[in-house]
Amino acid sequence: MNIVMDAFGGDNAPLEVIKGAIDAKRDFGVDITLVGDEQRIKSCAKENALDISGLKIRHAATVIDVCEEPTEVIKGKKDCSMAVGMKMLADGQGDAFLSAGSTGALVVGATMIVKRIKGIKRPALATILPTASDPVMLLDSGANADCRPEMLTQFAMMGSIYMNKIMEVTSPRVALVNIGTEESKGRELELETYSRLKEAPVNFIGNIEARHVPLGEADVVVTDGFTGNIMLKLYEGMGKFFTTELKDMLTSGFKNKLAALMIMPSVKDFKKKVDYTEYGGAPLLGAAKPVIKAHGSSNAKAFYNAVRQAKAFTETGVIDETTKALAQMKESQKIKEQ
Amino acid sequence: MNIVMDAFGGDNAPLEVIKGAIDAKRDFGVDITLVGDEQRIKSCAKENALDISGLKIRHAATVIDVCEEPTEVIKGKKDCSMAVGMKMLADGQGDAFLSAGSTGALVVGATMIVKRIKGIKRPALATILPTASDPVMLLDSGANADCRPEMLTQFAMMGSIYMNKIMEVTSPRVALVNIGTEESKGRELELETYSRLKEAPVNFIGNIEARHVPLGEADVVVTDGFTGNIMLKLYEGMGKFFTTELKDMLTSGFKNKLAALMIMPSVKDFKKKVDYTEYGGAPLLGAAKPVIKAHGSSNAKAFYNAVRQAKAFTETGVIDETTKALAQMKESQKIKEQ
Repeated sequence: MNIVMDAFGGDNAPLEVIKGAIDAKRDFGVDITLVGDEQRIKSCAKENALDISGLKIRHAATVIDVCEEPTEVIKGKKDCSMAVGMKMLADGQGDAFLSAGSTGALVVGATMIVKRIKGIKRPALATILPTASDPVMLLDSGANADCRPEMLTQFAMMGSIYMNKIMEVTSPRVALVNIGTEESKGRELELETYSRLKEAPVNFIGNIEARHVPLGEADVVVTDGFTGNIMLKLYEGMGKFFTTELKDMLTSGFKNKLAALMIMPSVKDFKKKVDYTEYGGAPLLGAAKPVIKAHGSSNAKAFYNAVRQAKAFTETGVIDETTKALAQMKESQKIKEQ
Repeated sequence: MNIVMDAFGGDNAPLEVIKGAIDAKRDFGVDITLVGDEQRIKSCAKENALDISGLKIRHAATVIDVCEEPTEVIKGKKDCSMAVGMKMLADGQGDAFLSAGSTGALVVGATMIVKRIKGIKRPALATILPTASDPVMLLDSGANADCRPEMLTQFAMMGSIYMNKIMEVTSPRVALVNIGTEESKGRELELETYSRLKEAPVNFIGNIEARHVPLGEADVVVTDGFTGNIMLKLYEGMGKFFTTELKDMLTSGFKNKLAALMIMPSVKDFKKKVDYTEYGGAPLLGAAKPVIKAHGSSNAKAFYNAVRQAKAFTETGVIDETTKALAQMKESQKIKEQ
């Protein structure tokens, strides 16, 4: 298995990508190809005394920036590390692609270069978030600002299969994000999606209010990419707010510092619990081959975990399962229409 | 000044409403009228040995439940405490109305009974949230699931005036909630609202990503009522998630319990900082007279603070200021069109 990694995506590229790749190659028994400016990758490794002899490198002359138009990845910047990496995946030279670069460009590239699973309307960014109990998958967390009900229904199905196959959740509880739990709540989008989800081959538990998401009351929560992105970022912001407050609390004055020493193991457990890097990256569900978006601020550990996730994504047949489920849905739709 | 309170709104009615009213009457020098079943109010006070001789009571036979259709407040349940209270406000028998009951019914009642400020398209629920620095006003946090750009522009203006007059923020920083900071980000709603806000008489600082909201990077953040409600509830849920984790951390094992004792004052400061009850309730901006939605789980302290807020809302002339600003906007619009 060959995992293709964008060496120049994210805030800490290429150093942290290289570090994560070395560790992952050692521990997971996969091949890894780093895509990007070969000279820069080599000199970064040399400067940091990192042995990259076990990694492959595929040269790509440029990098697409988060500020650039996402469509540049298939237009002016076909030679950027992200485009070259996705082309490798599409051509069968790799089994999964992983990047911490521009989300917009990754979505465009996954759609146009890697292509979608037949029948899937749009790929969705699926982020796994920590909760008070088990992690929850939020999708779409930012690929499509505007969504239609059939898209949300497909997201529910794809998220459900992923959580079952990769996170080993039996019969994942799927919920629709809404402003109330009653079936009559929400906009046209939620009303129509609700009735579709009742019929879909998922364990639909109804609407969920956003307050219940961090308490772990569902395994998969679906919404449009605008709302999902707002939720994802608020999750992040609230996490930062609280951990900063906690840190201030534990470092203000002698007595507090002493107390901090005493509860340090618990604080570390807590930090680990709310640490997104534990879950790897966000799969772009609906792409015809495994594409994973790592967080922009990923460090070596996050890249390491994302490679593990990419391996599982490839091995567990999530995409085959999705293709099969789609065919079944279409079939049952036909029978109903007859 | 007479503050009219729905004695039967919220999870802790009527006891906590009565307690909050007694304390507020004593401290703020206002008259308070409790609206609801007179017999039940009197017996509740008696059972709890509360002296309500200083409060007025206006009898209302029924209560509108959160599960009922909001429009019932102007149809089948005209005799409910919420409808009777708002009628009093509309008729000039009170200066502000306060309820912890159904948000939907309150919005309908504010629109149809109290009426809107002339020119205001829709009233918005404006919630004040704690942040790492100063509190932020989020609106619309749930009155209108679907919004148009002109509505969001009015929300920005009303929120700005409120934060200036009541919270004493000089030139409040107004931001539009979006999935990126660039002007080109978002749905049609955000694109059109952005260009309107640039021209509006507010200190518009551009788009804000949700992650920056809890860090206090704006004073007023505007969005549609669907997104706003999701944000509000996620804020709540994340707060619950973290405080539960913190509590678990501070009560697991002898060493941690000892540490907890040492940092207790800081924990209390933290809890106070993230306690919504400190800010009173959410004003329904755009109604022709002060209407405040208290949180459904409000306790006596929250009702007490909501009365203080209702008093300030009435005294500081937020509504007059809004009416003036609207007239000016209309005027400048006319000049531009000529």
